[in-house]
Amino acid sequence: MALVSVDECRAAAQAALQAAGVDTEPARLQVDLLLDAELRGVPSHGFLRLERIIARIGNGVADPATRGVQHWRGDSFLSVDGQQGLGPVVAMQAVEVASARARQTGIAVAAIANNNHIGMLAWYAEAIAQTGLVCIILTTSEALVHPFGGGKALLGTNPIAIGVPTDTGPFVIDLATSLVSMGEIHDHGHRGVALPAGWALDAEGQPTTDPDAARQGAIAPFGAAKGYALGLAFELLVTALTGAALGREVRGTLDADHLSNKGDVFILIDPLSGQGAALSAYLETIRQTPPAPGFEQVLIPGERGRARKTARLANGIELADAVWATMQRMRHSSPPTARQS
Amino acid sequence: MALVSVDECRAAAQAALQAAGVDTEPARLQVDLLLDAELRGVPSHGFLRLERIIARIGNGVADPATRGVQHWRGDSFLSVDGQQGLGPVVAMQAVEVASARARQTGIAVAAIANNNHIGMLAWYAEAIAQTGLVCIILTTSEALVHPFGGGKALLGTNPIAIGVPTDTGPFVIDLATSLVSMGEIHDHGHRGVALPAGWALDAEGQPTTDPDAARQGAIAPFGAAKGYALGLAFELLVTALTGAALGREVRGTLDADHLSNKGDVFILIDPLSGQGAALSAYLETIRQTPPAPGFEQVLIPGERGRARKTARLANGIELADAVWATMQRMRHSSPPTARQS
Repeated sequence: MALVSVDECRAAAQAALQAAGVDTEPARLQVDLLLDAELRGVPSHGFLRLERIIARIGNGVADPATRGVQHWRGDSFLSVDGQQGLGPVVAMQAVEVASARARQTGIAVAAIANNNHIGMLAWYAEAIAQTGLVCIILTTSEALVHPFGGGKALLGTNPIAIGVPTDTGPFVIDLATSLVSMGEIHDHGHRGVALPAGWALDAEGQPTTDPDAARQGAIAPFGAAKGYALGLAFELLVTALTGAALGREVRGTLDADHLSNKGDVFILIDPLSGQGAALSAYLETIRQTPPAPGFEQVLIPGERGRARKTARLANGIELADAVWATMQRMRHSSPPTARQS
Repeated sequence: MALVSVDECRAAAQAALQAAGVDTEPARLQVDLLLDAELRGVPSHGFLRLERIIARIGNGVADPATRGVQHWRGDSFLSVDGQQGLGPVVAMQAVEVASARARQTGIAVAAIANNNHIGMLAWYAEAIAQTGLVCIILTTSEALVHPFGGGKALLGTNPIAIGVPTDTGPFVIDLATSLVSMGEIHDHGHRGVALPAGWALDAEGQPTTDPDAARQGAIAPFGAAKGYALGLAFELLVTALTGAALGREVRGTLDADHLSNKGDVFILIDPLSGQGAALSAYLETIRQTPPAPGFEQVLIPGERGRARKTARLANGIELADAVWATMQRMRHSSPPTARQS
């Protein structure tokens, strides 16, 4: 592992994107998103993704110059054609416009199609809640998850994030409807460790503890039938609002070659004023709950990540050597980058 | 068990509510909701609830004459003071008004405080999706669920329902963020059967398999940390929009004496047209997935309940003898009913 300061990480990633032809401001947004994932301890959504983003720009399936085309379907429904822009660039533009509308009408939705991977949803949820709005964020992705009781990957990991402002700062959850991420499967593979039973099926739909077999197969939904129901509902809801592809037709978030055809939905709501103190007090009550046997303390979702962020801002980030080497190589590339995959 | 025809059930429940002073139309809505739960196989939200509803009317904590007071906070945000009306009466009035607005603005939210228990959310989600709208429904409830890692009940069972119209009818999920319902704990108690490990804690926060001890303690969240995160986020979100009570301050859905201070949120969205066929085809693909070992088929959420409904509409409903006897007694009561608990 390489211990790299936040400033160094940011500069390298920014230079790599600019070398690929991305303007300063969109590059800054994309870097902020990846950096925030590293800071919170979600490296699967961190700088590991940079090489693919740059390859997609080189391959013409990511356009760093667009912010998408926005169209109001109704006073509170913003429909966005992402035009294969960079995920956070298109999404934050939509969030900004829809947030202003939510402050007027009480609620607004931005439904985005044809946008590149929007990365870690907590980044958006935190930013939105910071401005005083409640949000629900959904995005779909390639089929990696099997239905409960089914032997084949047919659902995206279909995460949900929710942000709620409180007097002690944003409350944020961000969770996939899969039991684990494909990143965790890969990680077990790299470390040569068997998967726990119940995590995955192989390509024939048989239970497996072999990470390599799991990569060709499917990950379980979290929470058995209930997590499956949620993941399926999110997939249908996102497509109903965006026209995105479904199931195994989804492309472009795990490859460098295909147009991205998944969907992103941001629901933004202006909450009642005056609730923040009660919400904070309730969270404190939960934090102070006597732990159950086997636990040291009760955690509030998002707070471990926030503590990691504070520490890493001070001490730097541990990056996998290969990731850091690639970042340094890319900053000296010249645009457009050659085809990479 | 008593096998009772749907018409008999409906007539008895309708008469019981009218005997308690409820007008024909609100009584019809309340009966429809309870009946639908029986038909779909969710007796915990069926006619078992009728006695408490009528007791609450008698005790002055449910007002069958109001539909709530509605106020537009913004063009798309309907704030409702339920004035302790009957749950489905206030909620359906809000849904009707907010749905019309969602068709104009693309999305609308109804945030309801001071409303009685709204019962099985699937009933609303199905009705809303039937009219062509997508919906997300959240409601809070008394603290019965412990935080992941915590020893005390601090969260409601905080269910979510989602409805999405498809060309083959509404897709509906409706699930609590608890691992099981308190009804299932009671059911094990009645049958004298131990609970599976992991379902519940006793009043001291220790794991228990004793249904009686669990009733004094707490139910686990579903899906470990993720289900806890969802349940907590829903509790905060609902309160942020409605001003409802939180955690152990919530009253009035499990007792006959307290004003109801939980909240209900209905988000209604007008989807893109032309997606219904793709959604139906995707569901069919999932239905046809080869099952994993140990499973006979892959189920689509809501479809077992719909099949039960078809069968019960034809063959009648099996009610617990005590429930049916109470319904028959109540239809001959005179209003206002005496205090019951």
